[in-house]
Amino acid sequence: MQSDKSNQHTIGNYFESFAIGQIFQHGVDRTLTQADASLYIALTGSRFAINCADTLAKQCGYQNMPLDNLLVFHIAFGKTVNDISLNAIANLGYAEVKFHQNSYAGDTLSVSSEVIGLKQNSNGKSGIVYVRSTATNQNDEHVVSWIRWVMVAKSDPACSLKPTVIPAFKKTLTAQEISREISADKGLLAKSIQFNQWQSHFSDNQIKFDQLNVASVIDHQYGITLNHSEHSMATRLYQNNAQVHFDQHKMQSSASGQRLIYGGHIISLCRSLSYNGLANAILPVAINGGSHTNPCYAGDTIYALTEVIDKQELADRNDVGLVRLRLLGYKNPTQQTIKQIPVEIKSSLYNDNQGKPNYAANTVLDIDYWALFIR
Amino acid sequence: MQSDKSNQHTIGNYFESFAIGQIFQHGVDRTLTQADASLYIALTGSRFAINCADTLAKQCGYQNMPLDNLLVFHIAFGKTVNDISLNAIANLGYAEVKFHQNSYAGDTLSVSSEVIGLKQNSNGKSGIVYVRSTATNQNDEHVVSWIRWVMVAKSDPACSLKPTVIPAFKKTLTAQEISREISADKGLLAKSIQFNQWQSHFSDNQIKFDQLNVASVIDHQYGITLNHSEHSMATRLYQNNAQVHFDQHKMQSSASGQRLIYGGHIISLCRSLSYNGLANAILPVAINGGSHTNPCYAGDTIYALTEVIDKQELADRNDVGLVRLRLLGYKNPTQQTIKQIPVEIKSSLYNDNQGKPNYAANTVLDIDYWALFIR
Amino acid sequence: MQSDKSNQHTIGNYFESFAIGQIFQHGVDRTLTQADASLYIALTGSRFAINCADTLAKQCGYQNMPLDNLLVFHIAFGKTVNDISLNAIANLGYAEVKFHQNSYAGDTLSVSSEVIGLKQNSNGKSGIVYVRSTATNQNDEHVVSWIRWVMVAKSDPACSLKPTVIPAFKKTLTAQEISREISADKGLLAKSIQFNQWQSHFSDNQIKFDQLNVASVIDHQYGITLNHSEHSMATRLYQNNAQVHFDQHKMQSSASGQRLIYGGHIISLCRSLSYNGLANAILPVAINGGSHTNPCYAGDTIYALTEVIDKQELADRNDVGLVRLRLLGYKNPTQQTIKQIPVEIKSSLYNDNQGKPNYAANTVLDIDYWALFIR
Repeated sequence: MQSDKSNQHTIGNYFESFAIGQIFQHGVDRTLTQADASLYIALTGSRFAINCADTLAKQCGYQNMPLDNLLVFHIAFGKTVNDISLNAIANLGYAEVKFHQNSYAGDTLSVSSEVIGLKQNSNGKSGIVYVRSTATNQNDEHVVSWIRWVMVAKSDPACSLKPTVIPAFKKTLTAQEISREISADKGLLAKSIQFNQWQSHFSDNQIKFDQLNVASVIDHQYGITLNHSEHSMATRLYQNNAQVHFDQHKMQSSASGQRLIYGGHIISLCRSLSYNGLANAILPVAINGGSHTNPCYAGDTIYALTEVIDKQELADRNDVGLVRLRLLGYKNPTQQTIKQIPVEIKSSLYNDNQGKPNYAANTVLDIDYWALFIR
Repeated sequence: MQSDKSNQHTIGNYFESFAIGQIFQHGVDRTLTQADASLYIALTGSRFAINCADTLAKQCGYQNMPLDNLLVFHIAFGKTVNDISLNAIANLGYAEVKFHQNSYAGDTLSVSSEVIGLKQNSNGKSGIVYVRSTATNQNDEHVVSWIRWVMVAKSDPACSLKPTVIPAFKKTLTAQEISREISADKGLLAKSIQFNQWQSHFSDNQIKFDQLNVASVIDHQYGITLNHSEHSMATRLYQNNAQVHFDQHKMQSSASGQRLIYGGHIISLCRSLSYNGLANAILPVAINGGSHTNPCYAGDTIYALTEVIDKQELADRNDVGLVRLRLLGYKNPTQQTIKQIPVEIKSSLYNDNQGKPNYAANTVLDIDYWALFIR
Repeated sequence: MQSDKSNQHTIGNYFESFAIGQIFQHGVDRTLTQADASLYIALTGSRFAINCADTLAKQCGYQNMPLDNLLVFHIAFGKTVNDISLNAIANLGYAEVKFHQNSYAGDTLSVSSEVIGLKQNSNGKSGIVYVRSTATNQNDEHVVSWIRWVMVAKSDPACSLKPTVIPAFKKTLTAQEISREISADKGLLAKSIQFNQWQSHFSDNQIKFDQLNVASVIDHQYGITLNHSEHSMATRLYQNNAQVHFDQHKMQSSASGQRLIYGGHIISLCRSLSYNGLANAILPVAINGGSHTNPCYAGDTIYALTEVIDKQELADRNDVGLVRLRLLGYKNPTQQTIKQIPVEIKSSLYNDNQGKPNYAANTVLDIDYWALFIR
């Protein structure tokens, strides 16, 4: 009996095996189903109306209820883990997350990534890998694309240094870009899609685009406690095989001694919580960037609030507008913290120290996204 | 940065904002899917045959396997929480729960409620709100309707008292009413639906209508332990956003110090447990009323027993009959309690004290419903 | 009020009620849905490509993505529990598990079992029941069949002894038999099914048939920690009502004091873990036999490794071969154990003592199966 070491693909890639321009066609294409949508509701508590009823969706011009863009993103993202981040030390960030078209039950995602940046860390033991990933559907059309960068361990610390390449990318997608993107023929807001017949009660009579004040902060008020099974099931549903989420035996000897909760699950929980206040932010159309500011563990209770950063009307459209939102997640607040939020959000949640946020230990998420908003 | 307080819809309604005759058209219409049915099986363990196989359902005249009526009820009920009971202190009861027609995967529910009763409590801090809720499908046909009453906090204890209106409703739906209701053109037992070819093994060769003895008590024998994730997932699947089920951080300071389990989940667990003994009670057609006699928490183990209250033949039908059942749930019995059940059900589970049940601490559910029963 | 004892079907069968030749037509036929497949992914983490994408499956000649054979097996197996093993003391083994054809969402399973062996234990209190079970679909075609034997309690220890019948069955299905079986008109590898266009990245560029070395051991490397909700949900999804998995209140007084995890869930977890190394073992076609060598509990972390026992080319086929694999599951290894695996697999995991494995306490599964393997 002998150990078979011929297959390096089962242990992921290390920093030294990445090269600029390298393209990964990721494994395990995935057909999205209505079951993924129901599970997403059960796991996150999402209630955004457009994803919940065929009748409503058809009335607005969709073929039927579209899948939640974040569900689609998580499944697409999950496909990249095996090649890109199985040996990740940290997921550092993402940018230019663009949703190019709606997905429906029955669509199949294929995902690829191109290495667009590399930077070895000064300690020589790891480096940062930048990739641009793209999910396409069964018709070879783009569904969602994004840039992310991740710190990856080196397998052999002695291996030679690669020239540093740091890719150019946009810190923020402008309303103009988004508008052009979503108005395309098959875009999220193609001409056939109209919200003119939206009735206020569809989204629980909540505030609409015209009443929304830029710079206001909306406290979503309610919390959700993390249990092990939901985050484990969500992460497996996305076929994201990063081991830190699943293996308590190994995590026992980590700094926290616990399984880490997949950051995407936290994004989804915060977005779901944000329904309470922003029910008319019917769907995210792009994500400018985001940080998982502190790790989450089973037993933590997650709350969220949103700062309205910007709002823009859309040309030839009086049914929906574009809103830029900063979604902040925090956990286990003290009575003191709860009182300070949202009135003193800056000081209680993070400190703007020389332009760089200095997050308090109970913040868990700071994500900046654009959403369609019912007028 | 300023807090946005313009939207009252995100904090629910308080007692003083309800008015007799007021109608709520609830948010977030919901398309029911086969995934909801599979999740319901995974979450509750239900095995009633008619909901599990297209072949069997079609042989009986259904278009395909109908969704479990309790699943439909929970989803419909969940829609009412945001407007009616987000500030509920207690869910006091329901009555006249009628299932008007079968639901199938693909049907979409819209739910509305009318305020039919109001009664301020003598302490002036809260009051009882009575509503009649109705779920309709995409063809505007009634699917399920019910009355419920709930104790709701006042936002301003000083606000003026409203005249008390207590609605008339039936404590028990009679077999005649039920029979008329279910025999309607699209009713649960429309003419096209026939169980003449039912084979005993479909429902595990259990007792049939003719062998069922009125006043007998059936011990369903087996228990199911509550875990946090299943009740959380079930409640979110129903998009029921009552916070007491989800937020451990806030519940820490409540009397129990724990998240409460949604009463509807307990109903479903007890009904699922009742398959073992009442597999031929193939579907509930109406609920006369019910009480959640004690709260349930994760870690509790739930058992159930059923008292047969009544049975009635149906005109022109020898395939099924109508049976009135009292389903009792209890938890964590001591060896002593187990021995007493079901022989001494009255004394062990509750005490009939001057006509009013005086439930022991380990009882959790007392529900009175009508079911179709295979002959 | 009186207790109804007329229905023996709710307490399962005891040893003395089984007779050679007896046939059970099990209750609750079950239509398989795409939701079962999504739940299976969420509960087990399975990533085998053929079960995940309609596009890929159709390209290979399937009508669309087939359901995972193990999911089908667990649902079929679950149907037999109520009649065969509700009073089981131990599930002793299975053999000749054959998958006769693929199942798709929409197919309905009916399951029957024939008693083919009986052997009373020498203590007179229990006996071994051997059954051959068969699941058929809505067209009365065989889907999966298997033999299993189980130790069942006697209800009345004094009841008379039955003549011992031990059935003949194959310890191992040969490649020839399997090949004949799967090549049948509707078999798993009917002529219409072709993997000639398989691209390496479909299965994460892992080792293919020709590189696979007989007698090699593949360490699947990653672990998965068991939570209560997932195993409970999986077992309920399969409608397997064995009480040891669900009732903590009763299990408190058992030897372990804990709920046991359904062995089938462990098989599925180990098979899912085995994707990492054996992604090209695209589907199991038969199981020769298996043992659950130690019980598993919530909190345990499961790992797996596979020994390649045999590989066989298939006549007229250069797209796939047949591989016989021994899948070993173990839990909570010490640092010492981890180092020994897989190099000293024999000594660390079990001892071959006079031809009989003598498993160490951390082994949980030893299963021997045939799989189709991409060339």
